[in-house]
Amino acid sequence: MTADEGRNNLRVVFRPDGKQVTVDRGTTVLEAGRLACIPIDAVCGGSGKCGRCKVKIDGKTITEGSEHLTEEEVREGIALACTSRIEGDLIVHVLPRYRLGKHQIVTKSVQKMPERTTPWVTKRFLEMNPATLSDNLADRERMMRAMDDARPEISLEGLRDLPSALRDGRWKVTATRSDLAGPVEIIRVEPGDTRGSAVGIAVDIGTTTVVVDLIDLDTGEVLGTASDFNRQMTHGDDVIARMMFGEENGLDELTSLARETVNSCISRVMEERNEMDGERLSRQDIVAASIAGNTVMTQFFLGLSTDNVRLEPYVPVTHHIPPMKAKDLGLMMNGAGSVFTFPSRAGYVGGDVIADVLASEMHRSKRTHLLIDVGTNGEVVLGCRDWMVSCSCSAGPAFEGGEVTCGVRAMDGAIDRLRIDDDLAAKYHVIGDRAPIGVCGSGLVDLMAEMYARGVIDRKARIQERDSDRVRTGEEGLEYVIERKERLHEGATSDLVITDADLQNILRTKAAIYGACSVLLRKTGKDLGSLSSIVIAGGFGFHLDMTRAVTLGMFPDVPRKKYRFIGNGALGGAKLALVSKDARRETSKILNKMTYLELSVDNEFYEEFSASLFIPHTDLGRFPSANHANDWRDVA
Amino acid sequence: MTADEGRNNLRVVFRPDGKQVTVDRGTTVLEAGRLACIPIDAVCGGSGKCGRCKVKIDGKTITEGSEHLTEEEVREGIALACTSRIEGDLIVHVLPRYRLGKHQIVTKSVQKMPERTTPWVTKRFLEMNPATLSDNLADRERMMRAMDDARPEISLEGLRDLPSALRDGRWKVTATRSDLAGPVEIIRVEPGDTRGSAVGIAVDIGTTTVVVDLIDLDTGEVLGTASDFNRQMTHGDDVIARMMFGEENGLDELTSLARETVNSCISRVMEERNEMDGERLSRQDIVAASIAGNTVMTQFFLGLSTDNVRLEPYVPVTHHIPPMKAKDLGLMMNGAGSVFTFPSRAGYVGGDVIADVLASEMHRSKRTHLLIDVGTNGEVVLGCRDWMVSCSCSAGPAFEGGEVTCGVRAMDGAIDRLRIDDDLAAKYHVIGDRAPIGVCGSGLVDLMAEMYARGVIDRKARIQERDSDRVRTGEEGLEYVIERKERLHEGATSDLVITDADLQNILRTKAAIYGACSVLLRKTGKDLGSLSSIVIAGGFGFHLDMTRAVTLGMFPDVPRKKYRFIGNGALGGAKLALVSKDARRETSKILNKMTYLELSVDNEFYEEFSASLFIPHTDLGRFPSANHANDWRDVA
Repeated sequence: MTADEGRNNLRVVFRPDGKQVTVDRGTTVLEAGRLACIPIDAVCGGSGKCGRCKVKIDGKTITEGSEHLTEEEVREGIALACTSRIEGDLIVHVLPRYRLGKHQIVTKSVQKMPERTTPWVTKRFLEMNPATLSDNLADRERMMRAMDDARPEISLEGLRDLPSALRDGRWKVTATRSDLAGPVEIIRVEPGDTRGSAVGIAVDIGTTTVVVDLIDLDTGEVLGTASDFNRQMTHGDDVIARMMFGEENGLDELTSLARETVNSCISRVMEERNEMDGERLSRQDIVAASIAGNTVMTQFFLGLSTDNVRLEPYVPVTHHIPPMKAKDLGLMMNGAGSVFTFPSRAGYVGGDVIADVLASEMHRSKRTHLLIDVGTNGEVVLGCRDWMVSCSCSAGPAFEGGEVTCGVRAMDGAIDRLRIDDDLAAKYHVIGDRAPIGVCGSGLVDLMAEMYARGVIDRKARIQERDSDRVRTGEEGLEYVIERKERLHEGATSDLVITDADLQNILRTKAAIYGACSVLLRKTGKDLGSLSSIVIAGGFGFHLDMTRAVTLGMFPDVPRKKYRFIGNGALGGAKLALVSKDARRETSKILNKMTYLELSVDNEFYEEFSASLFIPHTDLGRFPSANHANDWRDVA
Repeated sequence: MTADEGRNNLRVVFRPDGKQVTVDRGTTVLEAGRLACIPIDAVCGGSGKCGRCKVKIDGKTITEGSEHLTEEEVREGIALACTSRIEGDLIVHVLPRYRLGKHQIVTKSVQKMPERTTPWVTKRFLEMNPATLSDNLADRERMMRAMDDARPEISLEGLRDLPSALRDGRWKVTATRSDLAGPVEIIRVEPGDTRGSAVGIAVDIGTTTVVVDLIDLDTGEVLGTASDFNRQMTHGDDVIARMMFGEENGLDELTSLARETVNSCISRVMEERNEMDGERLSRQDIVAASIAGNTVMTQFFLGLSTDNVRLEPYVPVTHHIPPMKAKDLGLMMNGAGSVFTFPSRAGYVGGDVIADVLASEMHRSKRTHLLIDVGTNGEVVLGCRDWMVSCSCSAGPAFEGGEVTCGVRAMDGAIDRLRIDDDLAAKYHVIGDRAPIGVCGSGLVDLMAEMYARGVIDRKARIQERDSDRVRTGEEGLEYVIERKERLHEGATSDLVITDADLQNILRTKAAIYGACSVLLRKTGKDLGSLSSIVIAGGFGFHLDMTRAVTLGMFPDVPRKKYRFIGNGALGGAKLALVSKDARRETSKILNKMTYLELSVDNEFYEEFSASLFIPHTDLGRFPSANHANDWRDVA
């Protein structure tokens, strides 16, 4: 491949996909990848800081810096996609480990669905007399007359449907009515009797992943599920990086990417549904949407500035989100369809947490519950039907593939379960049964717990010198070799290791979560014994070996049966709000009941956090069962 | 100019504008004119029927038929733009008479504006405490807290304004609130105190012309006016032609053209306002719109099918039009701005008539009034505050430049006033003081009345043989020569004449109007003496010589002081509804009070119509003052 100095339209081919784009000279390889829809991981948002977007380049580029690259990598032509500017035609090989692969997205949620659905969108069958010269009422008023009860308003879209629906249906039509915004509005009119065909979507807009459930509004049945990476990921892994991108570049790009992701999920779930079932649904049949996301994701999706969420005093634009129409949000469903969005309690306790609470039903309970949602951020809620207090701890992305050298997301090639043998060699399970590319969150918990159990790390999570080739001194000090490069994915240039720095990041994450739980209990004067249950929400929690997590001091040491797992609580809550009027109303009640505690300025939190920077804790009395850690040897 | 047989992109230059377009072979010259934004009159919508789109063509075309062309015209290269298909590069000379010139659009209206305005959009100034870590309420809820009264909803646009408005205004903002849709909604938030800067638009969407008034919502003052031809005109002069176009080609084009016309008026009125006044207004400041139009224009504007308006039983999609947002109608004003649209009583008694009634205040009167709106269609309303009955008569386009050989719209070059001397020569006034191109509505009334007074026509409006070169036998029988071609506009190829056929069209129009008035009086058992006033609405009525119109038997013969002229009542009503909550509410009351009489199936109407096909009427007793017709000899 030759660099063509004179041209500005340079051709870039991505391997192994074979996708190709034409770009201007000076474009970064990461940007070209975005244009070609090649999912290159860029945890830091393309600022050259995370070193996660490694690619092998054939062709001419100008590359700034190589701090994240080994000498061997540089020799092999490996560079960071974000700092490599294109100077000629290129072939770019995306390395398996830095490629966003098939993700293990948690689309399951555990929640009690209502026996009878009460969605805000319902259908009503109407029969009327044909218009004649002597009864020449207009179409709308004729339909109104056929409704004995209230006279609802009708949307512009409904009015557009009306004339042909009345005549095609020979004056028998089905009106779709929404009362989300208060007064009933007719949003669609179809010829004939189409009752029973109204569907809605429940949407979880996560920082990393987006999940859409297609729901039959009559039965509450899930007709299909689709999920995808949030396409905003190329602008940073965490909400902070994306907010900074938004401040510099405006919100439009982030808003579009969020909507694109949701729309692509809608497309896929509709396609799959229609392939499966003879009775075809159209996008026009999707007449309601229920959306839960954290505050930042919600505001991006709505196109609301997040500048003030990032900066003290961290306030959202709004707690309560007004009802919207799908067309105003660019959703590829019925434009008049009504959209319910979960309210946000604070900048870092958003609609996803309200949805978790809804799915957990703790807001209906007389007894006290503790809810923990571990994602890119960690949120904790303590309370019952009478009171609730919430907080957020910046758990950091350690469990989502960030800040840990060997860390990857829970996707194909990720080690998700692991044990360490007597000879200190790791035995592990890889998602997708292939050669490993790294270790995901649940694998890291296993890894740290096993290293501690085997004495490879001490209580402060520092690696100990051992007489084993598995523990050695690397560039950054002592490191533990999880796997040799020969047994890793093709093209791996170094062994899979975990370093002291990595372990400290994991330790801080677990300390933040435990510290948040502790401070809420302390502030409210509650002890662990008074808890009726500890609810774990979020994908990470769903795959976690809880016994090991407790052993590390990440979660409180209570009898195992007190732990409940609700999976994707944001999705679960969104589903509930979609099919139950009561549930939807309860979101406001939860919002109003919930106090928010700002941990970033809380001294007690820092005490609790610091005390948790040990395995399991400085106060061993808090973890009586941790002494029996070896009892679970057989579970891996 | 040579025809280039091999090319498909042919160049067409229009004279005298000099505008140029490139089109495909086979495109009609009319279509090319549309592309070049050359306003060629096409009364029939381009179907070759009306013969009004005459152009002189240099270059190669294939032309079908020439029934509307004289031999001389054919010799001179004159053809119909709509039936001439382009086969090579062309120069097209648009003839003055068939060119839509500067139109005399009635933008004046007479209505009593309220002393104190009560628009549905109001502004409220709010001060609040800054957000802090201890008072970290979200922006929206902070603003709500500052409102002691109701807690209104806020639009997505308002939410988008909110964060920067609060901070730019140092926690002092002005909220723009709309209660058009019922519950109060905040549609805009601006930093600082901007009370007093809210403006709205009153819009009259006529079949022929569109008028936009820019109104200060605080004072009711008209800040500017802009008007334009309805751009739908190239698809036909009357609503029937356009509805047929819509049925064949879909509504999108007609909807777009209507919105384009309104938007171009908004642009112009804003430009003029901002040139005049230092204090600049932006489109975002336009937060309310009040729209009146006939049923067909209204439905086109909203994108609602008119198929069922054209066909029996002529029903509109809706009587009442729900409140809309500007963004849903593509209006280039504040997208969250609320739009009120006048309701339609029937397919041919629309929002413009409701607006006429509102402006006339007959709906508030104890005594009975007769309202006549003569436009392309004629509408008549009889009633008072307790009851109202309305009807529509297809008056035909005779007074708007259609169906009459010499007829033109009231635009530059149109004869608008006329008298006939003893020697039967016509003396006239021309709009814009130039050589005449034709006779507009008010001129035609003068012409017929004068011809009758001079004995040139009999009571059946048939031309009588006279010993004068002004009365001669033409291709279509007897004709009266209004002016010789030498004294007409440049390029005129024939004398300006009126024929028997023309006069019969005018006669039918006046008979339809009078017949409609009569039948309403007859059905309600009222006589002329019981009328408190006769209200004349519409541009045509504004310029009319009423005495002559009565002499012809077009309007009832009552004392002149009983006639009231409200000018553009649609615009006047729209203005009232914009600035007065009472007036807006009264539109619904008028709608509910008003009965509609379908004349097309009414025998009594046909009796009255037939009896009116005389000058002034078969029953001379109805027109006692017509015998003194010569008394007004001096007014021309």
